[in-house]
Amino acid sequence: MENAVKTWAEAAPKLVEVAAGRAPADLVIRGGLLVNVQSREILEGWQVAVASGRFAYVGPDASHCIGPQTEVVEAEGRYLIPGLCDGHMHIESGMLTPAEFAAAVIPHGTTTMFTDPHEIANVLGLAGVRMMHDEALMQPVNIFTQMPSCAPSAPGLETTGFEITAEDVAEAMTWPGIIGLGEMMNFPGVINGDPQMLAEMAATMAAGKTVGGHYASPDRGIGFHAYAAGGAADDHEGTAEADAIARVRQGMRSMMRLGSAWYDVETQITAITEKGLDPRNFILCTDDCHSGTLVNDGHMNRVVRHAIECGCDPLIALQMATVNTATHFGLERELGSIAPGRRADVILTSDLRTLPIEVVFARGVRVAEAGTRIAQCPHYDWPESARQTVHLGKKLTAQDFAIAAPEGAIAVTAKVIGVVENQAPTKALTYELPVTEGRVQATGEVCQIALVERHRATGDVVNGFVSGFGYEGEMAIASTVAHDSHHMIVVGTSQEMMAEAANRLGEVGGGITVWKDGAELALVPLPIAGLMSDSPAVDVAAMADQMIAAMAECGCTLNNAYMQHSLLALVVIPELRISDLGLVDVTKFELTDLFEAPK
Amino acid sequence: MENAVKTWAEAAPKLVEVAAGRAPADLVIRGGLLVNVQSREILEGWQVAVASGRFAYVGPDASHCIGPQTEVVEAEGRYLIPGLCDGHMHIESGMLTPAEFAAAVIPHGTTTMFTDPHEIANVLGLAGVRMMHDEALMQPVNIFTQMPSCAPSAPGLETTGFEITAEDVAEAMTWPGIIGLGEMMNFPGVINGDPQMLAEMAATMAAGKTVGGHYASPDRGIGFHAYAAGGAADDHEGTAEADAIARVRQGMRSMMRLGSAWYDVETQITAITEKGLDPRNFILCTDDCHSGTLVNDGHMNRVVRHAIECGCDPLIALQMATVNTATHFGLERELGSIAPGRRADVILTSDLRTLPIEVVFARGVRVAEAGTRIAQCPHYDWPESARQTVHLGKKLTAQDFAIAAPEGAIAVTAKVIGVVENQAPTKALTYELPVTEGRVQATGEVCQIALVERHRATGDVVNGFVSGFGYEGEMAIASTVAHDSHHMIVVGTSQEMMAEAANRLGEVGGGITVWKDGAELALVPLPIAGLMSDSPAVDVAAMADQMIAAMAECGCTLNNAYMQHSLLALVVIPELRISDLGLVDVTKFELTDLFEAPK
Repeated sequence: MENAVKTWAEAAPKLVEVAAGRAPADLVIRGGLLVNVQSREILEGWQVAVASGRFAYVGPDASHCIGPQTEVVEAEGRYLIPGLCDGHMHIESGMLTPAEFAAAVIPHGTTTMFTDPHEIANVLGLAGVRMMHDEALMQPVNIFTQMPSCAPSAPGLETTGFEITAEDVAEAMTWPGIIGLGEMMNFPGVINGDPQMLAEMAATMAAGKTVGGHYASPDRGIGFHAYAAGGAADDHEGTAEADAIARVRQGMRSMMRLGSAWYDVETQITAITEKGLDPRNFILCTDDCHSGTLVNDGHMNRVVRHAIECGCDPLIALQMATVNTATHFGLERELGSIAPGRRADVILTSDLRTLPIEVVFARGVRVAEAGTRIAQCPHYDWPESARQTVHLGKKLTAQDFAIAAPEGAIAVTAKVIGVVENQAPTKALTYELPVTEGRVQATGEVCQIALVERHRATGDVVNGFVSGFGYEGEMAIASTVAHDSHHMIVVGTSQEMMAEAANRLGEVGGGITVWKDGAELALVPLPIAGLMSDSPAVDVAAMADQMIAAMAECGCTLNNAYMQHSLLALVVIPELRISDLGLVDVTKFELTDLFEAPK
Repeated sequence: MENAVKTWAEAAPKLVEVAAGRAPADLVIRGGLLVNVQSREILEGWQVAVASGRFAYVGPDASHCIGPQTEVVEAEGRYLIPGLCDGHMHIESGMLTPAEFAAAVIPHGTTTMFTDPHEIANVLGLAGVRMMHDEALMQPVNIFTQMPSCAPSAPGLETTGFEITAEDVAEAMTWPGIIGLGEMMNFPGVINGDPQMLAEMAATMAAGKTVGGHYASPDRGIGFHAYAAGGAADDHEGTAEADAIARVRQGMRSMMRLGSAWYDVETQITAITEKGLDPRNFILCTDDCHSGTLVNDGHMNRVVRHAIECGCDPLIALQMATVNTATHFGLERELGSIAPGRRADVILTSDLRTLPIEVVFARGVRVAEAGTRIAQCPHYDWPESARQTVHLGKKLTAQDFAIAAPEGAIAVTAKVIGVVENQAPTKALTYELPVTEGRVQATGEVCQIALVERHRATGDVVNGFVSGFGYEGEMAIASTVAHDSHHMIVVGTSQEMMAEAANRLGEVGGGITVWKDGAELALVPLPIAGLMSDSPAVDVAAMADQMIAAMAECGCTLNNAYMQHSLLALVVIPELRISDLGLVDVTKFELTDLFEAPK
């Protein structure tokens, strides 16, 4: 099943033979300028010879490695740079399977990804992680899996499809494609000595693997230091120069991200460009990329290019997306540089600043050329358990979304989740809402939000209020992408439309649907775990565009409104969220009533 | 038995508690300037708190970590630097056991050593390596063992006490203190695809450990590239700037050494100071240090100081003896920097250029102060098999050293090993020597050399001739340090004295003895494997000084004459050597006759 690459040890006899000139290489690339990320030099005229998917010879003249069957590629004055590595990312953010994600990023020169399948872990547990892991290993590029650490993200405040235990982590550490622990986002747990969090990190360290960090707080005081003492080896949650510096000073690696909605490179890279810190402990990553970004803008090439635009030396920027990343995960002698023994992942580009990705080789095989993928990205045979994950338990009706007022009330003071454009945190607002026939009416800029349980078919619906989207008329939007427990979030002005939208997702096995005036305006089917499509990125991006257009047709003109929607159940980010257990006050990490007590 | 240190994972609950201020630290150091080798900065006023032998807190203010039992050390404006690491070395070169070597270097600030017990492997095989390994783990500092790769060094040209196999290597990889494979010095074997050499490297790589390199040739052509393809991760045999650059460009780490007789830092460090290469792949090491160097000059502090004198930025020089080394061996999160979770190995010094080693802490314990060791360095209980390794099989007499001339000859043209001052290679010389009563007479500047078998009690003595030492009168010097197979080398002007010297070493279990006119002038007893003393370095150095004086008294005034003596059986270095199998022409890697054929 695995798109296997021989280990260096297995390949060594052949590599030595080729380098010594006793056997021909499979591939020679000559006539270029080699970017050596180990010495941080450009070596004019250096050539590479490849065998068994690895570099056998890297030097001034590979002619002794050429036989009749050797493919000889003329670089024609272009640069040879190592294939790009994404230090931390979530495949599910692209709404694509690993195969289709790989297919989308290969033409952009990404040949290695360190991926945390945190979303599917919430839906399908360890079995789901294994499916992602297995499809990852089938690809022609390197996709390593970080075992998710925190499902549920907020124990006691939500119910996930499955929970990850320290035993799950220990088991996953024995799998071939597991590279470490996914971001330890329960930083309050670590700081407070939570035994499960420490046990997960201990299992990872005992396996000699890397503990991913996630310290999402601007406080760099004692709590931050305690978190560092717990064992997290990196962090990608920094947003300011001081964050980046603080992490490196603690012996962590600072991962700076440019995702579809993350812009944390420009604000932090000055730690290198202005403060002059040793760049070895800085790494570039995307964290989250939507399919539209992959189709239109790029992937790690976009991040490296951006770092250079921010004033970073191109060779240092490349190091931050190649050898630094590989070193961090203990893979320095496996990939991330153009040097003997490493996987022959190499890009031809004619400009080190604008970084056009002209030809991409992965493990010595040409996988993309001029923006077009050549290699196959095989699909895993996803079982029914992964394709049928929306368990509603019943057909929902408008009644399920009706919100009863307190006995005898003629108006209520309701707690309302206030969405703020371009910000992940919400505001905890209150609105006076009228009551008609014992039911609270959402009016004006307030509309309804519902969390529909979909993992255990309980038929439970938790109702609440949200403002800020600008929805008008009779509409609803539903999504089974609903971080982090991934039930279903339905937002709407009409209880009938909310029921239609929810039932529709139950019918198609998950995704996103927008309804207005009794008709479906857009559908993004995400049949795998209700999170991912196994269609190509270009198709998913087109459907997502239609979905955005449909949201606008319903009156929503917020930037990134869908992301806001999908985060409304993320009960670890302040101030007010919704979960399957009720409304959550994330400033206090506790459940709260929907209505304020009458005065 | 092991002087155990809890793993980070085991210690994490405590470290988090201390960092968070919920438990007191064992030790706090404050009032200094912290050298951060991760960010390459000096952080004024930064403090450290230590618990369970590891750094718990590293930051601007550790006062919340101080309890009534916490030892508080005032740095008084001194620098805190990480304990120094020696990237590659042989303990046996100091003629000291691991315990006594550690005792000697701790006051110099060396807290981590990567040691290749190649010499004892030749005498006692895997069992001897295990003894070294076990004593290493008993020490209060970190001594990692590199499994020796090449015993014999020159298969077919010598007989060692034991041979190391690929199976031995695989077994050793399971031991707790093994960090990788010792220098793969059979570089022609690797280049030619020798299956045993490749199997040893494969076993190491399969265990996820580091393959040490040793490419002792100035040729940086195809053979060098083939060697790099085989898997060696580092090399310390470079002597010129171009050597250092070539290694780093191949993705190897360039180890630059300053030993008692190696001076390879000054000639290579210009790769950084002038050529501007990324310094991350450069490492400082000693390779071989005599006890006198340890007593009089220092150890890694001497190397770092020297690198700085050569124009290297002090912070970069320190990185090359701390974090670079740790990263190379996959120990970056274990030691080599002052950061949370790492072993609390830290030095106080008042000057970053002259580097006085004022206080040394290892694993949070004060181990030396003002040049005086405080910590205990426990001795392993060396068994009789290690203490009785000089097996002569009989009492030798002058007759054993008599050299018969060819039948009827009245003079011969003898091949003579020509020692050259300050050079490891010898010259293959010829001399006309007279014959008396059928025996060849060494005359003038030519004296006799004998290789006395001592591993299997065969009683065999191989006789030959050597010139260049300047010995006069009736004398002999014998040594069981006789690289690499460590039989016994006896050099003398008198066959009687040669027999006395050889028998004396049989009696004391090995070492070095100098005889003149029927009396012993000096003795350095090396009872452990005939290679090491378990006496303190200062005593061994004093005995070695007496031995040098005795050699001078016998007429030898060469610089480093004893080293020359001990290398005369090293049948991998040109041009002419002696082994238990006969005279060896190392330009052809073959045995050769003692006399030239009569014309």
